[in-house]
Amino acid sequence: MIINTCLERAPAIILIEPREAGNIGSTARAMMNFGMTDLRLVRPKTHWLETFTRQMASGANEILNGARVYETTEEAISDLNIIYATASKKRDMIKPLLTPRSAAQEMKSLTQQGARIGLLFGTEPSGLENEDVMRASALISIPTSEDFDSLNLSQAVLLIAYEFFQTHLPDSFVEVSLSGKRSSFATQMEVEGFLKHLEEELDIANFWRVSEKKPDMLQNVRNIFNRIQLTQQETQTLRGILKALVYHRWGIFSQKNKTSS
Amino acid sequence: MIINTCLERAPAIILIEPREAGNIGSTARAMMNFGMTDLRLVRPKTHWLETFTRQMASGANEILNGARVYETTEEAISDLNIIYATASKKRDMIKPLLTPRSAAQEMKSLTQQGARIGLLFGTEPSGLENEDVMRASALISIPTSEDFDSLNLSQAVLLIAYEFFQTHLPDSFVEVSLSGKRSSFATQMEVEGFLKHLEEELDIANFWRVSEKKPDMLQNVRNIFNRIQLTQQETQTLRGILKALVYHRWGIFSQKNKTSS
Repeated sequence: MIINTCLERAPAIILIEPREAGNIGSTARAMMNFGMTDLRLVRPKTHWLETFTRQMASGANEILNGARVYETTEEAISDLNIIYATASKKRDMIKPLLTPRSAAQEMKSLTQQGARIGLLFGTEPSGLENEDVMRASALISIPTSEDFDSLNLSQAVLLIAYEFFQTHLPDSFVEVSLSGKRSSFATQMEVEGFLKHLEEELDIANFWRVSEKKPDMLQNVRNIFNRIQLTQQETQTLRGILKALVYHRWGIFSQKNKTSS
Repeated sequence: MIINTCLERAPAIILIEPREAGNIGSTARAMMNFGMTDLRLVRPKTHWLETFTRQMASGANEILNGARVYETTEEAISDLNIIYATASKKRDMIKPLLTPRSAAQEMKSLTQQGARIGLLFGTEPSGLENEDVMRASALISIPTSEDFDSLNLSQAVLLIAYEFFQTHLPDSFVEVSLSGKRSSFATQMEVEGFLKHLEEELDIANFWRVSEKKPDMLQNVRNIFNRIQLTQQETQTLRGILKALVYHRWGIFSQKNKTSS
């Protein structure tokens, strides 16, 4: 499902001391999947732009090419307005702790009011230093299973970028839509035609066995087909199947008749 | 944020012809992050359980150890009730097309009714064959940016597992936080300007008393102001307050000086 959503002033992703080239590549890819473009690196390992980085970025090269490198977090965020820090561990600091979903709502509202937002990500497994967390107005923590809470850096970026992107979707995409062309639905008359035909044939075949049971059984049969939301083509196909099955049966009957005569 | 949520009968993840060992490892990790345990592989590449698989799984070994391998999709899903297929491309099939979020709601409801659910994932970049898609009652498509819609296999698993996990969170974790109206936010440089100014003045005032205590005390002070999400106006106001206080102090000094002279 490809959405042409213009994410104006999407948050900047700021990686503090990223160590693995592959992770930087995957982060770029995750950003691009969800319309984020502003990647900033603070004190990355010396050779961060390796072949492996581009390989893991899988085509998100424009993000890597535009990435800016800084010596300090302070410089990296100086032009931004509001900072969020991602945290897997509890901190001894008084800050709002948000889920990615509630943070995404807040970030959307803040960007609409003109704020430029930055998201700080630390390295695995230690995470952000308190000195960096301190710069944030709130923490974002991704709820995970108790048994296994270690998220990969690019996965954390992916989930937060995904949630931010979700807030920009038109309502129609949040609802259920149908894939494939459904050129024309069958009318109820067409469906009813098939169901009547089916009932007749089942009568002939003595399908219901006990006539008192027929109403309930018929209702169940009707429910099955009514739930499908049939197209005209499919209804025709079903009638074709029914005719074919019946034809076969009559064939046997006529053979029998021939034999008995 | 670690949540002790029991995901009873969480959906099975079924990878069709997975090729990269690293992807299988990352998938196991993503599953474990969000309480899923049932991994099934259909015709995986011969040596799928490599050192690299375990490396990428980053500790999610129990998922890999319990993974079951099948020759056909049919066998892999035979014990399951409802199948969803993930699809990045449009299909010429008439099936409900769900977002991960709406699918997660539906899956939760179905599992509560006793259904065992399976999620089919194809290989990059081709995705699932129609023959496999056909087995699904609905498609799940992850909304992505128009410019870049290729999601890594384990990232797709991660997002869908994440959404399913979200439906099991207590309400308190889903809460949306509110943000007020703010005319224009201060940049981090402006906030930093105020904080540096404050620190200088506190140095002069011998506010920290014991120099060893300064780092912790300063961190607390900074946290207070960073939490506020200051506007430019508020930052100016704070600097004004600071200047006023300092001016007053110097005023006393000069008065003292006058008195003493």
